[in-house]
Amino acid sequence: MPEIDGERVIADLKRLAEFGRYKSGVHRPTYSPEDVASRHWLAEQFAAAGLDPLIDGIGNVIGRNPRARRRLLVGSHSETQPHGGWLDGALGVIYGLELARAFAADPALAGLGIEAVAWADEEGHYGNMLGSRSFTGGLSETEIEAAESRDGRKLREALAEAGFAGRPRELVDPSRYVGYLEAHIEQGNTLDSAGSRIGIVEGIVGIWNCWVTLSGEQNHAGTTQMSRRKDAGSAMVHLATRIYDRFAEIAGPRTVWTIGRMLLDPNAPSIVPGRAEMQVQFRDTDTNILESFERTLHELVAEADRAGPCRVAIAPLSKTAPAAMDPGFQTLIEAAAEHHAPGRHLRMPSGAGHDAQILSRRMRSAMMFVPSLKGISHHWSEDTAEEDIVLGAQIFADAAAAILKAG
Amino acid sequence: MPEIDGERVIADLKRLAEFGRYKSGVHRPTYSPEDVASRHWLAEQFAAAGLDPLIDGIGNVIGRNPRARRRLLVGSHSETQPHGGWLDGALGVIYGLELARAFAADPALAGLGIEAVAWADEEGHYGNMLGSRSFTGGLSETEIEAAESRDGRKLREALAEAGFAGRPRELVDPSRYVGYLEAHIEQGNTLDSAGSRIGIVEGIVGIWNCWVTLSGEQNHAGTTQMSRRKDAGSAMVHLATRIYDRFAEIAGPRTVWTIGRMLLDPNAPSIVPGRAEMQVQFRDTDTNILESFERTLHELVAEADRAGPCRVAIAPLSKTAPAAMDPGFQTLIEAAAEHHAPGRHLRMPSGAGHDAQILSRRMRSAMMFVPSLKGISHHWSEDTAEEDIVLGAQIFADAAAAILKAG
Repeated sequence: MPEIDGERVIADLKRLAEFGRYKSGVHRPTYSPEDVASRHWLAEQFAAAGLDPLIDGIGNVIGRNPRARRRLLVGSHSETQPHGGWLDGALGVIYGLELARAFAADPALAGLGIEAVAWADEEGHYGNMLGSRSFTGGLSETEIEAAESRDGRKLREALAEAGFAGRPRELVDPSRYVGYLEAHIEQGNTLDSAGSRIGIVEGIVGIWNCWVTLSGEQNHAGTTQMSRRKDAGSAMVHLATRIYDRFAEIAGPRTVWTIGRMLLDPNAPSIVPGRAEMQVQFRDTDTNILESFERTLHELVAEADRAGPCRVAIAPLSKTAPAAMDPGFQTLIEAAAEHHAPGRHLRMPSGAGHDAQILSRRMRSAMMFVPSLKGISHHWSEDTAEEDIVLGAQIFADAAAAILKAG
Repeated sequence: MPEIDGERVIADLKRLAEFGRYKSGVHRPTYSPEDVASRHWLAEQFAAAGLDPLIDGIGNVIGRNPRARRRLLVGSHSETQPHGGWLDGALGVIYGLELARAFAADPALAGLGIEAVAWADEEGHYGNMLGSRSFTGGLSETEIEAAESRDGRKLREALAEAGFAGRPRELVDPSRYVGYLEAHIEQGNTLDSAGSRIGIVEGIVGIWNCWVTLSGEQNHAGTTQMSRRKDAGSAMVHLATRIYDRFAEIAGPRTVWTIGRMLLDPNAPSIVPGRAEMQVQFRDTDTNILESFERTLHELVAEADRAGPCRVAIAPLSKTAPAAMDPGFQTLIEAAAEHHAPGRHLRMPSGAGHDAQILSRRMRSAMMFVPSLKGISHHWSEDTAEEDIVLGAQIFADAAAAILKAG
């Protein structure tokens, strides 16, 4: 079995975290100078591990394995959320690097090779999982042309400034790989609160987003009698309450739903809101549940619209399909976890989206989680115990070896 | 009785609307260059009407009447809301100017005089009715020192740039006046929809504002199970629904309540809101109702806080007391209205705040409304029929003469 160098893993993670360090976390948005520098550094590490590195036209860093006969693609994304955590995607990238080194160093694994990868923009600074979608053929030039960051910077400009414009975008040849493996921090507290050290991901939830718009009539909050009002804020609040209550009745055991964004217009204390908008999101690994949520939401919106006095409309924003992880890969990850941490591993869904859901459309894919302390994620204070990082790397390496031998 | 020159009234209103014209309305925030220029223009018109004009240290334009033995203070505010209407406060200011001219021209009214006034910042660009509060002794230097506009400009700087810094602030001598009269557009559609041409204001509502804060726990919207969430947005929506429903049960016939401002933090689609805030406002002329609303709101907040999982807190933001208008003045305005527009006038409360509520603490005060077409207010499309503007001026002048004679 491949032997992980735990100290090297920790040292590399800490070195990578220097690019954009913020308190104990990292601020490294996609295509920022820190992100670009970190991708060049990763390419150097891939080269030092005996891989042929390249950075492609969307910023993916890929370490090709020139010698292996059977290959596993292993990695995650390397940019961070604004003022995010030091491990989020970086953990899976450094695991990929460490696996490449460990496999290369073990003569017993000759011919079995790791190709390491650091995807670009999983965090969605400019789009939705740009790197893995580009690699699997799901990102058009038209979409690239139109894409911009939340603060209005064009993706094209960002790529040019990063020095990635004009480079070809790598496209997957699925026959080249046995499959794809991704490690990640859990981002929830299921493992931490259960005292478990490894999560074996059964599937990645589908995420459906809808945008609900309520149109009333903007008016003076002193001179407009209640009976004459068409208060879009009041209509939104009443509809949202109905949504929360009805969703709770039809939810599966793991369904989550969120109204994370609400806008009132003009949002002034003495003006009856003329317009209100909210984004309703729900996630599950079961498409039937997602469809039932969507149906219910449309019914509630239609009810509210009929009831008046505001007009209520709904538009779909985005739908990602749930992605099942490969059952055979899951069994082998579980076996490796049971070997190193007997009884301290869990099968679980991933409530967050990951590049693995994109890769799973083109090849067998699987994911492994390590615990997030207190479940904190997308915040600079995110962390994982060092012994869990090291243990996770060893289990991940064992699983990768078992998969390559079996595949 | 004094004789109004309707064409002159309309012409002056149109000339005043040139300062900061925006579409068919006006953009003239307090202390903007347009506002300062318009105040100097008003001072000139006051002088031409035989008054001794001054602009004081807060920007009030006051036209002193040097000859009268009995005086009525007549006016309103002259700045506008952002992209607001051309009549809002301007109507009452030009009525004051026209009354001064009409009284001066009528030998039968010798000794009875109008002092015209254009208050500063009734619209609250830098504070809360700064001009009338300054004039009545209710504005401290400490408050001026601290005040700034919504976009962060210091009041002191604005006054200096306007050229008003260092001037004394005029203070009322109540013994100088029989009382205060203010005309204003209604800003609602009570008159317009009833086909009435004049509103006699019985009282100005008290406006009470509270700020409700809900503290939960910011979390990832995918990885945080529903049972573990402390969703401040959900808590706000449920509490707001309770507030709307309970307020409707305890309201008086004219009470209005508004949640015009809601904030979610961080207001992102995939993050469970960790914090939510909303401003709850209610208005009535009856202090008992205001107190009952406040008590109910505190009860609902305490209930929500006890129920958890979010902490809910409430803080008072501001409370203005209801202001009764002088009954004798009301009778005389009504008589003048009945004379010129028999059967087409209404007694009504003012749902909006006005400088008259501040003046009423120091002297007998009254207000008269002219109709707002379709009730539109605080918008550049606000308007009033010209014949209603002219009729209103004549009724207002007759009422002022009757008040001065009676007083």
